[in-house]
Amino acid sequence: MTDLTRFGVSIEAALLARFDRYIRERQYKNRSEALRDLIREALVEEEWEKDENIAGGIAYVYDHHQVQLVNNLLQVQHDFHDLVVSSQHVHLDHDNCLEIVVVKGSAIKVGALYHRLKAMKGIKHIDILKTTTGYHLK
Amino acid sequence: MTDLTRFGVSIEAALLARFDRYIRERQYKNRSEALRDLIREALVEEEWEKDENIAGGIAYVYDHHQVQLVNNLLQVQHDFHDLVVSSQHVHLDHDNCLEIVVVKGSAIKVGALYHRLKAMKGIKHIDILKTTTGYHLK
Amino acid sequence: MTDLTRFGVSIEAALLARFDRYIRERQYKNRSEALRDLIREALVEEEWEKDENIAGGIAYVYDHHQVQLVNNLLQVQHDFHDLVVSSQHVHLDHDNCLEIVVVKGSAIKVGALYHRLKAMKGIKHIDILKTTTGYHLK
Amino acid sequence: MTDLTRFGVSIEAALLARFDRYIRERQYKNRSEALRDLIREALVEEEWEKDENIAGGIAYVYDHHQVQLVNNLLQVQHDFHDLVVSSQHVHLDHDNCLEIVVVKGSAIKVGALYHRLKAMKGIKHIDILKTTTGYHLK
Repeated sequence: MTDLTRFGVSIEAALLARFDRYIRERQYKNRSEALRDLIREALVEEEWEKDENIAGGIAYVYDHHQVQLVNNLLQVQHDFHDLVVSSQHVHLDHDNCLEIVVVKGSAIKVGALYHRLKAMKGIKHIDILKTTTGYHLK
Repeated sequence: MTDLTRFGVSIEAALLARFDRYIRERQYKNRSEALRDLIREALVEEEWEKDENIAGGIAYVYDHHQVQLVNNLLQVQHDFHDLVVSSQHVHLDHDNCLEIVVVKGSAIKVGALYHRLKAMKGIKHIDILKTTTGYHLK
Repeated sequence: MTDLTRFGVSIEAALLARFDRYIRERQYKNRSEALRDLIREALVEEEWEKDENIAGGIAYVYDHHQVQLVNNLLQVQHDFHDLVVSSQHVHLDHDNCLEIVVVKGSAIKVGALYHRLKAMKGIKHIDILKTTTGYHLK
Repeated sequence: MTDLTRFGVSIEAALLARFDRYIRERQYKNRSEALRDLIREALVEEEWEKDENIAGGIAYVYDHHQVQLVNNLLQVQHDFHDLVVSSQHVHLDHDNCLEIVVVKGSAIKVGALYHRLKAMKGIKHIDILKTTTGYHLK
């Protein structure tokens, strides 16, 4: 069970009216819930900026008929085995695969892994997803 | 003078401790001030998504020795005179100019102006800055 | 085997010198390889804007001790079973889980799923990763 | 007059077909023009990452009835007079002003100015626009 702290906030009435509309449209139950979401998003951005212990995903799409690439991808994942937690492989069609690697650790090291993968020939697209270990977002 | 409304918020204690650290580092005076900033940022994003009446800027860099381009830029600004409020012209060096056009109006129309300018030959870089009329952010 | 087309490009000499430095630093083998990457990134952005058939991931972090949330998450994934290809579940620590759902289909429907998940109480952070089916990026 | 270099590029035929559609829709005259745009965008991003000499804008919206804020804004602009080139002031309505400050110099110093302004009480919204001096984008 989480331990809630209650405190008072002062917001300009007109700004609050606008925010209440925002809350309704997004189907939040109350202001606290919506504010918690905004706070968590700000904190996750900060975790990545400060190179704290983060979690995230790196996704890339490639044609699996490239034997060399497939071996290189495995090699790189092993080179970064302290970061790579697991990976998920999806067969998009006859040729294309989407692989999402879950990473956990230093934000800077995750960036290094991302750039190493991005430079590999045969990757059609690669992107990084920045989330959190959740540890500080009780 | 602004009219403040005070209300209570419940946040998990650990999340709040983390947020308090965030607040200190950014030199906010108190939680209300930091939360108002997060709320305003969320609302400005929403204004642009919903095509409300927005304010913003379109900045582009070009070499002013292109007579045709200079004329075309003026022409486009006049074609969108209902959006364009004013423009600021900075001489970056002997060749390069940075022009920032302040726009106010429909977010979709601002997008149209942006794409019209972006397609013009001779523009070295163009970007759009999304802010607000401030009207709903009392 | 891919079918390459060769064509000529004209670039300002100074701009090309700068781009060649960029290429070396990123360890591309040649200009064609670097340009293919820039082209693919532009096309993936376009696929999402135009609501074409896309692939991507939605990642969220939550505390798995919330029985109701776990059930709701499964329910939503089933409601969107035409989009959801598979999911990967990572145990971040004693409490926190990271789940990445691979999605494939309409960009707008993926947005709807994302907002449905985002509104659920108990999600600590959620983000979306935009990539491609690779189909048009031979 | 610019000095053009011509060179050959090899692109997969299917990828090129897709890119040609992209080029037509954006009304580029030819492939070289579209590729130059992609190259310039990549280089401008790199200029900011590498803390090179950049140009940009910082825009903020505020209610001008706050005498102290108006003075503080002027003071900060003078503290950063080596960065601030000029500023443009737009009267959005009876209360709200949009000010866009054109900056030129170190990307890191521009970030410092941005954070200094962001922390000021009374700013309703602030955003930064990242562009280029154009010097390396002949």
